[in-house]
Amino acid sequence: MKIKDIGEQGLLKKLQSFCPSDIIGDDGAVLSINPQQQLVITTDVLVDNVHFSDRTTPPDTVGWRAATANLSDLAAMGATPIGITVGLCLPGDMSVHWVEQLYQGLAECLQRYNTPIVGGDICSSSVTTISITAFGQVEPSRVIRRCAAQPGQVILITGYHGMSRAGLELLLNPKLGHNLTPSEQECLILAHQRPNPRLDVLPYLWDKMGTTQIGGMDSSDGLADAVIQLCRMSGVGAKIERSRLPISPILSQWVSPEQALDWVLYGGEDFELVLCLPENLALELLKNLEEGAAIIGKIIEEPQVILIKENGQRDLNLFQGFQHFS
Amino acid sequence: MKIKDIGEQGLLKKLQSFCPSDIIGDDGAVLSINPQQQLVITTDVLVDNVHFSDRTTPPDTVGWRAATANLSDLAAMGATPIGITVGLCLPGDMSVHWVEQLYQGLAECLQRYNTPIVGGDICSSSVTTISITAFGQVEPSRVIRRCAAQPGQVILITGYHGMSRAGLELLLNPKLGHNLTPSEQECLILAHQRPNPRLDVLPYLWDKMGTTQIGGMDSSDGLADAVIQLCRMSGVGAKIERSRLPISPILSQWVSPEQALDWVLYGGEDFELVLCLPENLALELLKNLEEGAAIIGKIIEEPQVILIKENGQRDLNLFQGFQHFS
Repeated sequence: MKIKDIGEQGLLKKLQSFCPSDIIGDDGAVLSINPQQQLVITTDVLVDNVHFSDRTTPPDTVGWRAATANLSDLAAMGATPIGITVGLCLPGDMSVHWVEQLYQGLAECLQRYNTPIVGGDICSSSVTTISITAFGQVEPSRVIRRCAAQPGQVILITGYHGMSRAGLELLLNPKLGHNLTPSEQECLILAHQRPNPRLDVLPYLWDKMGTTQIGGMDSSDGLADAVIQLCRMSGVGAKIERSRLPISPILSQWVSPEQALDWVLYGGEDFELVLCLPENLALELLKNLEEGAAIIGKIIEEPQVILIKENGQRDLNLFQGFQHFS
Repeated sequence: MKIKDIGEQGLLKKLQSFCPSDIIGDDGAVLSINPQQQLVITTDVLVDNVHFSDRTTPPDTVGWRAATANLSDLAAMGATPIGITVGLCLPGDMSVHWVEQLYQGLAECLQRYNTPIVGGDICSSSVTTISITAFGQVEPSRVIRRCAAQPGQVILITGYHGMSRAGLELLLNPKLGHNLTPSEQECLILAHQRPNPRLDVLPYLWDKMGTTQIGGMDSSDGLADAVIQLCRMSGVGAKIERSRLPISPILSQWVSPEQALDWVLYGGEDFELVLCLPENLALELLKNLEEGAAIIGKIIEEPQVILIKENGQRDLNLFQGFQHFS
């Protein structure tokens, strides 16, 4: 059954179970914000064949990953989610099942974090496009910003990197997985298809941060990109120690150290948090985080991002002279 | 100059004057909500060749109308705007000038209502798509809802209808305007290209509504559609008196009474408010509104929307038996 067979009203009916019927295409949503908190808003647009592909990604996976990307943007600012809106552009010959599965994936992820779909819009287009705006709330003193990294702070990551990229590789070339156990394979594929936003990290931070300003963002575009962006926005630099970059045992066993390092730095879509904060606070936070979380380096004044070899020599200048971008 | 020539970073730089540079594509926005008020969120997606056409609508007009459509959705819920986010999908061969003009039109309209663009996302797609989410705030007792119309209330419109449709006709067939003065022509074209959201009506309502529940929505999809939607959502019906439907003098003079009535009922995009409220409150409100505002009928229990002729006979049943849609 295609969308053009049942029309917009028919499609809205099918999606009612995911979103209150009086919201999609009707009144806007009315929400309450905790009076002590500020509203955080992030927007993300996903386009077919740019951000996902109908051919390689099942629609429930597209939905889950879209939800995670948006909740991760909130987590990266220190905010807890209140709701999201979904603006959907769909071709008339798209199957109704595809749209239902997309919403199913969205809803499954959102439910884990008690986040409702509070509204949206659906319209016809030749290109499938998913535009999500996510709302969260945060106490003003707890806002995490990309521009708040300061020299002397350490850089903490909340989990392993490279796993999502490895999962994609396995999905594209299943034969490569012959020396991995089924549960190792599943672990990598889940990392790619069902990544989790690190909202769980926030309460541990609140517990200990007091009035400390924390710099941070998520690693959705890769760990190296996150460090570079943080440095660029804060007007600082960073030294990353190669020996402190956690490599998951599955990755070490599966691919060469060079390949593993490449995926860890540039793989992307791991949706971990990359936080810049005082070392004592970082050490306290680490006690509450699982394997894969680590302090990987520190923020320096000189505006360059350097990877340091095991023997202490400079290995790679990840990014230099980025001031002209700002 | 095309977007692909300057890249996303180049485009963001060009748009910085419309939106703080640290927001588009970077951190999300952090906003404060008045602690006594609730957050209202509405989402609207516009697609090239569906909701606007590059060929007939200049980009600044597309921007203005998109801003008005979203602010009108807030006004229709009784909310004052706080900000909007803009998710933009653009083909790489789109001219940078087009995008700048789009933002110029958006910004011009938003500035009138002190509404900032607080964030957004820009990405590549073969189809130009504009996805706007608007945020407003409202005191809980002042929320206007589509489902709140009650039998006995009168139906008030805040201005003339059919003007936007007439403006479109004039743009499509300029020769038809030969018996209109230049200022009459400009009036119709402005109604189509530069419609205003009726946020100005809200303070007069607040002044007098007390704890009265008001039903309402805007007439963006036409006056008849608005009355039908209000009745459908509230489980009521309506009697509209043809003699009380205001027809603008320009329209009466330009087209036949039948054509004028058709545009008034079905033309769309006038962005007036259609409010259901007690007669005494409606009469008070009318004192503050300009020519074209009127009480056009009343809400009845029987779930049908009837147009009543000058002689009191039923003229047209605009909609009957719509319960099966709900």
